[in-house]
Amino acid sequence: MNIGERLLKGDKRACARLITMLENNDQEAIEIIKKLYKHTGDAYVIGITGPPGSGKSTLTDRLTKELRKRDKKVGIIAVDPTSPFSGGAILGDRIRMNDLALDKGVFIRSMGTRGSLGGMSKATWGATKVLDIYGVDYIFIETVGVGQSEIDIVKTADTVLMVMVPNLGDDIQALKAGIMEIADVFAINKADLDGADKTQLEIEMNLDLNEKKDYRPPVIKVSASKNENIDKLTEKLMEHRNYLEETGELIERRKRNTKLEIIKLVEEELMDLIMNKALEENLLDSLSEEILLKDLDPYSAKDRVLNLIK
Amino acid sequence: MNIGERLLKGDKRACARLITMLENNDQEAIEIIKKLYKHTGDAYVIGITGPPGSGKSTLTDRLTKELRKRDKKVGIIAVDPTSPFSGGAILGDRIRMNDLALDKGVFIRSMGTRGSLGGMSKATWGATKVLDIYGVDYIFIETVGVGQSEIDIVKTADTVLMVMVPNLGDDIQALKAGIMEIADVFAINKADLDGADKTQLEIEMNLDLNEKKDYRPPVIKVSASKNENIDKLTEKLMEHRNYLEETGELIERRKRNTKLEIIKLVEEELMDLIMNKALEENLLDSLSEEILLKDLDPYSAKDRVLNLIK
Repeated sequence: MNIGERLLKGDKRACARLITMLENNDQEAIEIIKKLYKHTGDAYVIGITGPPGSGKSTLTDRLTKELRKRDKKVGIIAVDPTSPFSGGAILGDRIRMNDLALDKGVFIRSMGTRGSLGGMSKATWGATKVLDIYGVDYIFIETVGVGQSEIDIVKTADTVLMVMVPNLGDDIQALKAGIMEIADVFAINKADLDGADKTQLEIEMNLDLNEKKDYRPPVIKVSASKNENIDKLTEKLMEHRNYLEETGELIERRKRNTKLEIIKLVEEELMDLIMNKALEENLLDSLSEEILLKDLDPYSAKDRVLNLIK
Repeated sequence: MNIGERLLKGDKRACARLITMLENNDQEAIEIIKKLYKHTGDAYVIGITGPPGSGKSTLTDRLTKELRKRDKKVGIIAVDPTSPFSGGAILGDRIRMNDLALDKGVFIRSMGTRGSLGGMSKATWGATKVLDIYGVDYIFIETVGVGQSEIDIVKTADTVLMVMVPNLGDDIQALKAGIMEIADVFAINKADLDGADKTQLEIEMNLDLNEKKDYRPPVIKVSASKNENIDKLTEKLMEHRNYLEETGELIERRKRNTKLEIIKLVEEELMDLIMNKALEENLLDSLSEEILLKDLDPYSAKDRVLNLIK
């Protein structure tokens, strides 16, 4: 039985192997996904983001256990883009040496960027397809950072859960500005801390400003470490799923996300193509030397690189 | 006098105008920068990053005042990438309604992403060139988020200042993993809080693991809000500059950064090119519909988009 057939039968090792192959841009793995693509679409993807220190991993673990109680198979993809040079994300593995890792109904994977431009989105996206074919019911994509790349990844989920904590200081204003628009459900974690009510009020007030939508994101206070209100949060995630399914918005959202995925794939292949050519000719080295000597400006240098594929 | 000449004479309005033009990808502005590019290279660029709530803006303001005491002209670029949809970064402007804004020797600018893929780096980079020609001695690039895109931007600075705070929780481990490698100076802000010594110890221990370099990043405890130790931090930033200049590493670093800049410029132009063609033909819409119907897979869709420029 080849690896694709094994994946389809729910073989965990085939699943892990294929994700690694995709991370390495292995052409055989891509051909397998192409062939099996018709088996995707059943897994429901939930993106989880939030500022550092908000306890996203613990919350993801709790939500996973809640879904396991409901007999759902769960995949967790922990995206760790803050490690651009070391080429691997050991964080998730280190933290998740717990009972979840022993559960046959749970698949956990950490992903680093491996240093490539935009490679993170492609690898994450590939991993969700593999998990989908493998047969999980839910996929959590959890990010470590909270910047543009992370938002780009998380917003291609079906439902986006934003994890907040009390007392984030002034920067919360900025975070909220960008995140209000992509969050479908808000969780205020560590809700036993002072300031949880204030944070909730701030989020609700922000939501009041956005009157356009039929759906208003709920704001749920939870404590992941104390396992409080996780069932309620799970219900809210399910309610959002139902809303998307009943209104037909899920199809629209997946259509938009599919477009973003195509764009990312195109972007990467184009950049690989042109960078390989530029590397072959040591073009970037010589151009940057000319620029430092002020014999050239970067815009003209850009044109000379683009000429490689014209 | 045209706008380029005015910029060269230190006209603040010309400076603001040119940055806006570059944000809008105005060809005239690009031609002006190309012509004036030989006047760049004198400004020293300091990137400032750190998790939300670490007080980066206040610290940047304090450092600016310290440099003003030393009679240096300063530019501040506040990058706010967490606002992908609203297309503008009001944060910096809102916070900076203070005495700095009235100081003729200080230029402050907030930049949002304006929704374009990778547009943030290009706009930020363009703004540093404009400020450089305008004649500032120091440029602070300060990010709001701390993810891959922010690291990509900040690491193109001459010196990278990483702002930490006590008690960030588990996620600090992940942050550190990615940031240890790009930080040249660490500031622990809010150093009067419990846990500052522990954070310092953690950072120092991490630095102990990295024995490769001649230069060891200093770790300075400060309080931006109380204006404590800002002079000492400024000294450490100057010492790093001296180190880079004396060892010749500054040239190497700028060469590497110039390469990254060229790559970003190439990436954006390529993507604009291909996306415009794809939009013209409504190609992305029809491809994503085929994919949702399982008549097509995303990898094959990517090939069809790439065929547009072949």
